[in-house]
Amino acid sequence: MNGAESLVKTLLGGGVDVCFSNPGTSEMHFVAALDRIPGMRCVLGLQENIVTGAADGYWRIAGKPACTLLHCGPGLANGLAGLHDARRARSGIVNIVGDQAVYHRPFDAPLTADTEGWARGVSAWTRTSTRSEDVGADAATAIQAARTSPGQIATLILPSDSSWNEGGVVAEALPVPAAPVADPHAVKQVARILREKRGVLLLLGGLALTEGAQKQAHRIAAATGCRLLAEGSNARTQRGQGRLPLDRVPYVVDQALAALADVQNLVLVNAKEPIGFFGYPGKPSRLYPADAAVHVLTRNEQDAEAALAALADELGAPAAAIPSAGRRPEAPRGALSPEGLARAVAALMPEGAIIVDESVTYGRGFFPETVAAPAHDWLQNCGGAIGYGIPVAVGAAIAGGGRRVIGLQADGSAMYTVQGLWTQARERLPVTTVLLSNRKYQILLGEYQNVGANPGRTAMDMLDLGNPDIGWVQLANSMGVEAAQATTLEALGDLMAQSFSRPGPFLIELMI
Amino acid sequence: MNGAESLVKTLLGGGVDVCFSNPGTSEMHFVAALDRIPGMRCVLGLQENIVTGAADGYWRIAGKPACTLLHCGPGLANGLAGLHDARRARSGIVNIVGDQAVYHRPFDAPLTADTEGWARGVSAWTRTSTRSEDVGADAATAIQAARTSPGQIATLILPSDSSWNEGGVVAEALPVPAAPVADPHAVKQVARILREKRGVLLLLGGLALTEGAQKQAHRIAAATGCRLLAEGSNARTQRGQGRLPLDRVPYVVDQALAALADVQNLVLVNAKEPIGFFGYPGKPSRLYPADAAVHVLTRNEQDAEAALAALADELGAPAAAIPSAGRRPEAPRGALSPEGLARAVAALMPEGAIIVDESVTYGRGFFPETVAAPAHDWLQNCGGAIGYGIPVAVGAAIAGGGRRVIGLQADGSAMYTVQGLWTQARERLPVTTVLLSNRKYQILLGEYQNVGANPGRTAMDMLDLGNPDIGWVQLANSMGVEAAQATTLEALGDLMAQSFSRPGPFLIELMI
Repeated sequence: MNGAESLVKTLLGGGVDVCFSNPGTSEMHFVAALDRIPGMRCVLGLQENIVTGAADGYWRIAGKPACTLLHCGPGLANGLAGLHDARRARSGIVNIVGDQAVYHRPFDAPLTADTEGWARGVSAWTRTSTRSEDVGADAATAIQAARTSPGQIATLILPSDSSWNEGGVVAEALPVPAAPVADPHAVKQVARILREKRGVLLLLGGLALTEGAQKQAHRIAAATGCRLLAEGSNARTQRGQGRLPLDRVPYVVDQALAALADVQNLVLVNAKEPIGFFGYPGKPSRLYPADAAVHVLTRNEQDAEAALAALADELGAPAAAIPSAGRRPEAPRGALSPEGLARAVAALMPEGAIIVDESVTYGRGFFPETVAAPAHDWLQNCGGAIGYGIPVAVGAAIAGGGRRVIGLQADGSAMYTVQGLWTQARERLPVTTVLLSNRKYQILLGEYQNVGANPGRTAMDMLDLGNPDIGWVQLANSMGVEAAQATTLEALGDLMAQSFSRPGPFLIELMI
Repeated sequence: MNGAESLVKTLLGGGVDVCFSNPGTSEMHFVAALDRIPGMRCVLGLQENIVTGAADGYWRIAGKPACTLLHCGPGLANGLAGLHDARRARSGIVNIVGDQAVYHRPFDAPLTADTEGWARGVSAWTRTSTRSEDVGADAATAIQAARTSPGQIATLILPSDSSWNEGGVVAEALPVPAAPVADPHAVKQVARILREKRGVLLLLGGLALTEGAQKQAHRIAAATGCRLLAEGSNARTQRGQGRLPLDRVPYVVDQALAALADVQNLVLVNAKEPIGFFGYPGKPSRLYPADAAVHVLTRNEQDAEAALAALADELGAPAAAIPSAGRRPEAPRGALSPEGLARAVAALMPEGAIIVDESVTYGRGFFPETVAAPAHDWLQNCGGAIGYGIPVAVGAAIAGGGRRVIGLQADGSAMYTVQGLWTQARERLPVTTVLLSNRKYQILLGEYQNVGANPGRTAMDMLDLGNPDIGWVQLANSMGVEAAQATTLEALGDLMAQSFSRPGPFLIELMI
């Protein structure tokens, strides 16, 4: 058995059976092993951020890692932005990167690069398997690292001779470490704050946004009157009927400062302290009052639901039913608006839909309009590297096993990873992309005006996406994805309903 | 004056007047400064490898650096593959990367990443300007580093507060260091080899492929009977009428071993020893005989033309006219073939054309068929990160000031950076892309078969680009580039001639 075969068998034995890939020459023996050993679903991306973004989306829905297969050096580099976003979303990925043969590397062949150096910035665990005998054991460790709570990127670098040499040994799956429980002292301390202090906000992030954790958080809020809020960007929020209508920290600094102005005690539950996406002249980095006290109930790797349950018990909080979210909205009519789009999605989405939200400026008001939708998952971009939407939709659809994925997708962001539409077509994935075609980097125009000026010709040359306008229907069609334009809410609703009733991907170019 | 304004003025003062850009929020003050201060041509790319690849192409033709403008963290990561290829091509680039404000960075905002760490792998010089007062001086040093022979990547990281704070100081341009001259002992030693030894090959790379250096190399070969050969991949080779019909080291290992089998003395002139792109089981890394002696006339940063002239003088070699390349071929007719395509290009290209060659497998025989074309430049991918073609064509066209750029472009590679077509349309660049549509990763199918098997279903899922076929005419049209299909050499010739006679870009989907 060669190293590559031991790798495939160890991956399958460890429950990793989906491989998002864009291989090159140095990975051919691994491709050959995948071909010989059945059981791995291999999904090709035509650029590496499709591959890494898909692995991110897969984890968020499947709750277990996929593996990637990236070409050496620049192949990894091309996927770093997707890995950056996945790291910020705390997604687990077994990130497999080919490399030059160990003996060939010193010759500095053209594709040779600092693979380990590039990988470390996004990986919790990085190892190069320099001997075929070690590949299996290293892969088992990588799977364990990827599955370590809350989810981590484990990069396994595979020189081509480690792949082709005989001597591979399949490794048993290692135990998956359980999420650590909260410190009982932290639980007691937060209970005391909730009993004695005012202006308490429980800020929920990561694992604190599951349906189970939400129920415990609601018990606490119902018993103490504390406020609940989600972080600004969240990997996966369970929302809709039966879930809490949680709001989140606004993106815009002034709005966030206003939303958090009354906080005197900030309790972090798998969340980070709220800070600005960027620094701005004369504005604070921290988005909460300087004199607020910060308390940590749980860190991001800890078991949020158990901690919240323990806290509720400590408080003697009775069971509390999640209140009804009210009536599902009707499909709206008339001119396009952000609220209208959100209501259309809420009115028409199938039960169990997965929303992949890369709506950027247009989507800031989507949350309130969708609380009464059927139960669904809402996925956000946690790392800020734009272009996450189309790839994450690929992975979420593959993990979803038939669940409809709805991408709310800004046009500027979509262009970074537009190649992912081809993968959606090839795999016949149930993805409906609502492409928000405003033909500009709207967020940057806003930021530019904050700098204190109206953009002139040179600035517009860098912020405007018109001239020429991108034809999204043609673009989607060219990669095998059916598409149509909508200029009214009625047309949007018709196209959405139609796409939900059929298998395969569809793109709606929404002329906003 | 704020830091950003001092940066723009220092760049313009140092002769850097083209900026390939994809900015984000942290770069808005720099964008505002570009808007206020006239003189910089700003060209937007919709993904960062377009930006960095364009800067690479610009250097190759202009011989002076452009600057980039990349968004912090993942923005840089998205451009690393283009920078990798540029580094291997020894292109000079002033690579400007935004970053979090200095005081905001410790808060680990979502886009925060190891910018310096990612940059170092591709940069000869990396510096973060942490004070507005330093930005001008750092920029002047960056320009000098970029222009240091043979060309280097200088990465200047610009925290947003260094940009917006007052106190900026414009820096004078620093002197550009001349390329070092060859060691006279090396010249004498190589002259002795040429006089006394047999099986001498002068391997020419980088600056040794200019027209001037070729003339000196030809003097030496005519006087001594030594062999001349170019490296396998070269940033810019001056070719066609009046230039040497140089062959190059073949890509395929067995062909390269055969081509170099008779070499007993290998003289490197701004070249590296020829080694395989990859290691393969049972094949050597070095492509020349193990018992050949290796001599270095010049390193890649040294003045090749002067060294070759000194060597020719040392040998007492008389002046020797470059022999005629023969008659320009006629436009061919009939079924498509690699040779037919090459002859069509040779027959129809305008004088002074720039060929950007990312033809991969299809183009291995293009060189012999194009020696009798009018004088032209031929640009190759030196780093092996595919997707270099469309972006490099953008930069070469902007530097070329009206010269026609002809992209010979494999389809799989094109998909990595397809967004660059939009920039070609927006800037109305004279780029004719011949898109080689074979709907598979042909090179990998070949490599797979070398592994010893025919690909099965799983392997084909990773190597085949059909299902669905990409519609290149639609795809180009969607981004504003006119396009048409050709299935015969006649149609190819007609479309080529038509595109050469009109301004702006055109794409020919060649159904190979």
